[in-house]
Amino acid sequence: MDIDRDTFTGQLVDDLSYSYTGIFEPDDVRTAVDEAWEAIATRSRIPAFIPVLVTRRAREQLMARAQAEGRVVKKVPELLFVCVHNAGRSQMAAALAEHLSARRVHVRSAGSAADPGGDIYPLVVDSLRERGIAMDVAYPKPLSDSVVRAADVIITMGCGDTCPYYPGKRYEDWDVRDPADQPIEVVREIRDDIQARVTTLLRQILN
Amino acid sequence: MDIDRDTFTGQLVDDLSYSYTGIFEPDDVRTAVDEAWEAIATRSRIPAFIPVLVTRRAREQLMARAQAEGRVVKKVPELLFVCVHNAGRSQMAAALAEHLSARRVHVRSAGSAADPGGDIYPLVVDSLRERGIAMDVAYPKPLSDSVVRAADVIITMGCGDTCPYYPGKRYEDWDVRDPADQPIEVVREIRDDIQARVTTLLRQILN
Repeated sequence: MDIDRDTFTGQLVDDLSYSYTGIFEPDDVRTAVDEAWEAIATRSRIPAFIPVLVTRRAREQLMARAQAEGRVVKKVPELLFVCVHNAGRSQMAAALAEHLSARRVHVRSAGSAADPGGDIYPLVVDSLRERGIAMDVAYPKPLSDSVVRAADVIITMGCGDTCPYYPGKRYEDWDVRDPADQPIEVVREIRDDIQARVTTLLRQILN
Repeated sequence: MDIDRDTFTGQLVDDLSYSYTGIFEPDDVRTAVDEAWEAIATRSRIPAFIPVLVTRRAREQLMARAQAEGRVVKKVPELLFVCVHNAGRSQMAAALAEHLSARRVHVRSAGSAADPGGDIYPLVVDSLRERGIAMDVAYPKPLSDSVVRAADVIITMGCGDTCPYYPGKRYEDWDVRDPADQPIEVVREIRDDIQARVTTLLRQILN
């Protein structure tokens, strides 16, 4: 299937302008969609998935900006997990927090130096799948200012001071081992370490 | 990867008991997990995905029951789309409502006669993917009483009177063509017909 950029993005701008009626002008939506297209279409290896990836990126950026600028009311706390590549630790932490939260938080993850064309480490995906958690729709993405500003709780893992500081947010830095290039046994240990930390964090936030 | 039922379900019961602390007893969680395992493990064609499917099913059933019984507070309206097989119309409607709602509703779908081992029609998946909507994690599932009771708005398509009636909910029946065995051009028309209806519905609910 060939994708015609103008046809596809025109429809997506219509859809998201409808979604964000009263929150963003169509010009803001057009800018977000164009940025998403530029970020993704040139790097994507499977053309049939470009529409899905562009849509997700545009939607996520608009929601993060709407929250960051107070244009929408957050119904649950926003958690942001940050590591370097958004390919291991922050993905695991976000997936486990989602898994354990029964919809009482919303979760994002990002990498301070994420490769936008990269993949989540395969053994990380395996270690979560065997615990019942699918990573089908997750992908590494770089940290954006909107996402940081939209967060209520920010957990960093191994990314040092690259995450900008904003007052009024809860920050924690977790000393968790990097699963890159580790065998599955070690990846499982890291998963369980992160789960224990996520469990404690959710208990603190939600009580 | 072999899955040991007791190891996997034991961990899942622990996880979901944590998620639902104060809402369900571990025995309730155990029952939901066992039911999910029985419904899925015997029919699943890809053993590696059993944990993911069982987890999703158990989690969805617990959340629907918690809502139906007033054990949790709904933060947004719950929409339920029902058709016969949950392989075409109700899946499209749910996906489009999710796509267009900017998190202001939560969406479920089910089939009055869904085959729990069935698949969503491939051209339905294609027609949504070209509009930027991924159906990776969706699968046909039968209607359950909890899901009906948990809903605030129930839209039926082609399933007649098989959806039980509860007072206090908004019901609509949509006369939408069935995409089964139709060529992609027709499936796209059906998608656009459903999108127009979803747009109207969301405008009514959210204003």
